[in-house]
Amino acid sequence: MTKFKIAAIQMLTNTDKKENLKSAKGYIKKVAEEGADIVVLGEMFNTPYITSNFPIYGEIGKGESWQALSEAAKDNDIYVVGGSIPEKDEEGRIFNTSFVFDREGNQIARHRKMHLFDIDVEGGQTFRESDTLTAGDEVTVFDTEFGKIGLCICYDFRFPELSRLMVNEGAKVIIVPAAFNMTTGPAHWDILFRTRALDNQVYTIGAAPARDSRTGYTSWGHSMIVDPWGKVIKQLDEKVGYFIEEVDLNYVIQVRDELPMLNQRRLDLYELNKK
Amino acid sequence: MTKFKIAAIQMLTNTDKKENLKSAKGYIKKVAEEGADIVVLGEMFNTPYITSNFPIYGEIGKGESWQALSEAAKDNDIYVVGGSIPEKDEEGRIFNTSFVFDREGNQIARHRKMHLFDIDVEGGQTFRESDTLTAGDEVTVFDTEFGKIGLCICYDFRFPELSRLMVNEGAKVIIVPAAFNMTTGPAHWDILFRTRALDNQVYTIGAAPARDSRTGYTSWGHSMIVDPWGKVIKQLDEKVGYFIEEVDLNYVIQVRDELPMLNQRRLDLYELNKK
Repeated sequence: MTKFKIAAIQMLTNTDKKENLKSAKGYIKKVAEEGADIVVLGEMFNTPYITSNFPIYGEIGKGESWQALSEAAKDNDIYVVGGSIPEKDEEGRIFNTSFVFDREGNQIARHRKMHLFDIDVEGGQTFRESDTLTAGDEVTVFDTEFGKIGLCICYDFRFPELSRLMVNEGAKVIIVPAAFNMTTGPAHWDILFRTRALDNQVYTIGAAPARDSRTGYTSWGHSMIVDPWGKVIKQLDEKVGYFIEEVDLNYVIQVRDELPMLNQRRLDLYELNKK
Repeated sequence: MTKFKIAAIQMLTNTDKKENLKSAKGYIKKVAEEGADIVVLGEMFNTPYITSNFPIYGEIGKGESWQALSEAAKDNDIYVVGGSIPEKDEEGRIFNTSFVFDREGNQIARHRKMHLFDIDVEGGQTFRESDTLTAGDEVTVFDTEFGKIGLCICYDFRFPELSRLMVNEGAKVIIVPAAFNMTTGPAHWDILFRTRALDNQVYTIGAAPARDSRTGYTSWGHSMIVDPWGKVIKQLDEKVGYFIEEVDLNYVIQVRDELPMLNQRRLDLYELNKK
């Protein structure tokens, strides 16, 4: 199968974790009924995006949120890319983690955000994830019945090296749970999703929280999907919503054939490697 | 000096090489008089952009075009990034080459296009530079009184590795003589210049030929300059023209300080190296 349908959920995140999980499960059921094969949630969908929340909302191992996502995948026969949640380990460290489940509810991938978001823009956004989070150290590409999909979280996507490494490992689609803000969103969200898609000749999908200006961190929203030519297929605005769009892996092959950039890299002159 | 003025010339290219050189010299004089410190010409500014022309218009060593650019730099006390021209070597190979001259007319850099443009888009552009050209094999960063500047040519710019390597070597500005076409221009020109600037926190400057629909290869034009936040400072349309804009290297430092992405790369996990 070279075609499949992917959904992105742009939901409000409130302070009640159980409400967030219930909301996510409702959307997963809905998009599955509408034919989605894979569904993607936003970054930190089970907690307001405030660093001091992460230790409170964090779960160790197969916690409440993990269970809810696994069940939703199984119950609805759909792949679930579980946005991200704060994940605690036995040593008390906290990661910004995306769990991925297959149609049977089995965990098939776990990405821990590799690049933490520490920013201090004059007159704009200030945020320090590293106040409470630890960075992961693995590039994440998972296999599905449709082929290989890369996964990274928000700030990870700013580093062209990571997308390239995912593509080197076979990714034809890159999924990015994210939460850009009112400084970085209008300036950078679109061009990053478009250029990473173009450079790597992959589909890129970003799923963000809906905007809620009452919270300390205001999400840009604008969840989107871009094709391997860099063309926006669908983009939401800032409000609650979702989309379901078709991904055609034959089109990835076509674009890579017409503009064979990946083969035209001068790998005799430079190389990008994992250490 | 952290501030300087850079000009991009978007001129028509016609079949008479001498006319093209005269036109370039006229523009260089004009922008120097208007205060430009550095001037950039477009890709293959001395020949219509047709592969079969390159052997005919090509020059060995310090030929007619080289001399014209060197003189224009010296006569006008301006750095000249000489777009590109077909350069022959003693073995008969032809390169797509950009020569750079300091204010005294000395050659301070030479970039030979590293990635040749071979494309075959269904219903769109077909072109094979490799029919007559040989690829260069050097990353090019040159030093000026203002600091280090990276240089690549058109299709080179599609490879994020090359911009990164230039930045690793100290570039705070990346200059790109280029000639996107009516297929790739509207789809990719803007987002490439914006995202490379953003990813690498550099100014990017693209100089293209003006559009001439009578020729076999129709240039997109749209010469532009983008700041290190990814914001377009100035962009031309498709017609003949030029711009002179200020580059502020303190702003590069400010952006790199506010959003310290270059330091936040996970160089413990991946590395990009020249071979």
